[in-house]
Amino acid sequence: MKELEERIKKDGRVIGKDVLKVDSFLNHQVDPMLMEKMGEEFYKRFKDSGINKILTVESSGIAPAVMTGLKFGVPVVFARKHKSVTLSDDLYTSEVYSFTKKTSNHISIAKKYLSSDDKVLIIDDFLANGQAVNGLNTIIDDAGATLAGIGIVIEKSFQKGRQMIDKAGTPIYSLARIKAFENGQVVFEPEND
Amino acid sequence: MKELEERIKKDGRVIGKDVLKVDSFLNHQVDPMLMEKMGEEFYKRFKDSGINKILTVESSGIAPAVMTGLKFGVPVVFARKHKSVTLSDDLYTSEVYSFTKKTSNHISIAKKYLSSDDKVLIIDDFLANGQAVNGLNTIIDDAGATLAGIGIVIEKSFQKGRQMIDKAGTPIYSLARIKAFENGQVVFEPEND
Repeated sequence: MKELEERIKKDGRVIGKDVLKVDSFLNHQVDPMLMEKMGEEFYKRFKDSGINKILTVESSGIAPAVMTGLKFGVPVVFARKHKSVTLSDDLYTSEVYSFTKKTSNHISIAKKYLSSDDKVLIIDDFLANGQAVNGLNTIIDDAGATLAGIGIVIEKSFQKGRQMIDKAGTPIYSLARIKAFENGQVVFEPEND
Repeated sequence: MKELEERIKKDGRVIGKDVLKVDSFLNHQVDPMLMEKMGEEFYKRFKDSGINKILTVESSGIAPAVMTGLKFGVPVVFARKHKSVTLSDDLYTSEVYSFTKKTSNHISIAKKYLSSDDKVLIIDDFLANGQAVNGLNTIIDDAGATLAGIGIVIEKSFQKGRQMIDKAGTPIYSLARIKAFENGQVVFEPEND
């Protein structure tokens, strides 16, 4: 998505070897018009996949997920993060390790909002090591639901999440794919569509 | 907003004397089409107020705030919650007490996303005792920004937040105003517009 790549170049800040901060339009301040265009992109890619539910994780996934849900006309469920496991018969729970923050979170979704009837599109802000996607996928499996696709706003292709998803064969579409950070600059993978 | 009142009647669950759970369309599962209509309602009410920024608090405020931002064509900033104070020169911070959870959180906004040029509309999911609005208002004051209005999805008019805001004279518009819970049922204030 050209507009997103340009925005990342203009407003993103590269920190260290593998962190990109996009606080000005995605993770703290949100540009709703850009989110709407992201929703349209995800819809174009996945509209024939029979999606009837969108899953994401609070908080930064919510804005792109809700715009995507609007285009599909389907509900969005955002998983809640907890510091500790909240065991409950009413919840699906899984563990998510953050390499950036070096802490584990648990994420949970109320059982009544995910069932074996659901064909799910996961939407998330970043794909790095694939921990959040893995955590959501565990929950989708536990619910007997079907993972139909994964939509990512910004993928860091040099980390292992993308490879893991490709290996599993799940359809994935990332709006911006970062090949590397070179001298504090973002280098994108060539767009192939 | 009639459609919201009907949805609350249909899907809301009253718990105890003063808690309403709307997990099925606002706080965990989100109905994006309803969020869009909320955004339109807030826009209609505040379109002549010179709003150039929308503030909310993660996570449940994000969906209605982003849809409202889309209608206004302005950025949305969501305050981050922290368990402890994160003192930093780069952040505006204030304290928010939750009567429901009986815990204090701190909320913060990066200084670069709020300035004295900003005319702010606060959007939040619930108004009860007005703690979140107070916390955001402290931050708006610290930044020298102007609070132009407050848009609330569900107001529990019998708690003290509404009275506090009316006393301060800030324009407020709540899409659903709950007068009382009677025998586990929601009683709304009469709509006056």
